[in-house]
Amino acid sequence: MLYLNNSDIEKLSEEVNFIKSLEKGFKLFNNKEYKMPERMHLDRGEDTILYMPCLTDETIGTKIISLFPDNKDKNIPVINGIMLLNDVETGVPKAILDGSSITAYRTGALGGTGIKYTSGKNCKSVGLIGPGVQGFHQLLFAAKVRNLENIYVYGRNKDNLNQFIEDLRKKLPDIKIKASKDPEELVKNSEIIITATPSETPVMPNDKELLKGKHIIAIGSYKYKMREIPDALYELLDEVYIDTELAIEESGDIIQPLEKGLINEKQIKTLSEVMSKEIDMSGMTTLFKCVGMALLDVVVAEAIYKKALELNIGTNITT
Amino acid sequence: MLYLNNSDIEKLSEEVNFIKSLEKGFKLFNNKEYKMPERMHLDRGEDTILYMPCLTDETIGTKIISLFPDNKDKNIPVINGIMLLNDVETGVPKAILDGSSITAYRTGALGGTGIKYTSGKNCKSVGLIGPGVQGFHQLLFAAKVRNLENIYVYGRNKDNLNQFIEDLRKKLPDIKIKASKDPEELVKNSEIIITATPSETPVMPNDKELLKGKHIIAIGSYKYKMREIPDALYELLDEVYIDTELAIEESGDIIQPLEKGLINEKQIKTLSEVMSKEIDMSGMTTLFKCVGMALLDVVVAEAIYKKALELNIGTNITT
Repeated sequence: MLYLNNSDIEKLSEEVNFIKSLEKGFKLFNNKEYKMPERMHLDRGEDTILYMPCLTDETIGTKIISLFPDNKDKNIPVINGIMLLNDVETGVPKAILDGSSITAYRTGALGGTGIKYTSGKNCKSVGLIGPGVQGFHQLLFAAKVRNLENIYVYGRNKDNLNQFIEDLRKKLPDIKIKASKDPEELVKNSEIIITATPSETPVMPNDKELLKGKHIIAIGSYKYKMREIPDALYELLDEVYIDTELAIEESGDIIQPLEKGLINEKQIKTLSEVMSKEIDMSGMTTLFKCVGMALLDVVVAEAIYKKALELNIGTNITT
Repeated sequence: MLYLNNSDIEKLSEEVNFIKSLEKGFKLFNNKEYKMPERMHLDRGEDTILYMPCLTDETIGTKIISLFPDNKDKNIPVINGIMLLNDVETGVPKAILDGSSITAYRTGALGGTGIKYTSGKNCKSVGLIGPGVQGFHQLLFAAKVRNLENIYVYGRNKDNLNQFIEDLRKKLPDIKIKASKDPEELVKNSEIIITATPSETPVMPNDKELLKGKHIIAIGSYKYKMREIPDALYELLDEVYIDTELAIEESGDIIQPLEKGLINEKQIKTLSEVMSKEIDMSGMTTLFKCVGMALLDVVVAEAIYKKALELNIGTNITT
């Protein structure tokens, strides 16, 4: 059995085409070529362990993620976990991968895929609200799918923000990276805006004029009470893009505007529908809301695993 | 994160008091001091992956087991898997243990606990029908709870049977171990009989006289159509002992006799009820039917993990 830790996966991430893996994942999704039982969870108060299994023709994968909000106060990441891959023919465990890394790369690549298909092809600026691990990977992938010249970042904790920008500059040395003084300034300067926060109130101004023509990628809200997107945006949208129908069941950024009548179900399209059309969305106002699904983690993990075998990276642990 | 493979666990098994761990597990079960969502499974035809999570005050554990019946033809074990332990305070993964070993020791110890509480204290002979990995561990634990002088084994494949007996003699050099020519001879010679087969028809003769006064430990049947125990036995029983109420939902050895009216639900008692009474069941005819539950895997895995830390056994894998 192969074990791939965080730094193995970071090394491998340079060699894996995650966007292509996700495109393949969305194709499997569209063709229903997978088995994905409903997520299971084990809860104790606010603490949760999530089990996300999925089977494709190629592999069987299960991501097991712990979400312990109080870890913040202990200086321990809130999200921890593993990804288990089993051989599709025999069921024998073949690899264990660091689950936080898989989540970060999958979510980053999912945002990147969203940008690729739901923003203008010539966009050169992107803004991020929520400079955390997820946000960091969002920007790495944004830079893979668009020729970015400027990145703007807004966060309330200034020490974090400065460290974040410093780390990001090392990864993206050719792009100008600047802190924005408030979300309004950030939205004004950015063609694409990524929100990656656990907020329960919108993180952008509720201002139709300001939001017009912007491409929004919203990755933070995965519960009913979580909201990142202001009501004004929905009035500008002809269509709303989601990664999977789960978003309609889980995210406050979709459920609440549906309840308020700001959008209706007919306007909601999945990314796999949009992908096949390859429209350049320049000038349009767009929203891509994603919540993730086990299938996407599995295709990403399998791609990393294959590359690890090819490049002989990782630790072999005997069973 | 600590990784404990099969041979680490074998080493540690000498030092861990598994019966005591299970007694503790049944106490937690009785006092409802645990959280255990329903098992989840991912199926493709006959192949299954089972997810068995459980949380106690001390630890969080999830056993993930693949059951691929066709592996038999490939000379690969049918059951493979891992056991993941997460820190109960932070959710951080702390250990991965070989899942087949955990299953074998837990099931062995569960049978042993059954023998301890539902057979005569002075029993000196035990018979096993079904000489496989599970059966092997059943006998190791039978020998821990009773002063055995004789072990009888019956299996249809004679090569397997001889190998099994040879391996067992190395582990239990002070006990006479003999093959029985048929189940009838085995039952006749044995005070305690363990059945550990995937059979769909009873593996013992349907003979009331022969079965009278015997202590049966049935571990094989975990599906409706699976039967190891003949109808005649149920007519001899005042009570039927199970490990958990799951046995009533899952095992053909409980469901089918209930349907036929051979027993009624009022006769069924869980082992935790029996344990507190500490009755010597000498001379009685008894049946203990177990199907296992995540809680028991978790207490066993946690005991192994603690001993591994104490004795510095296992491989540290960086996260």
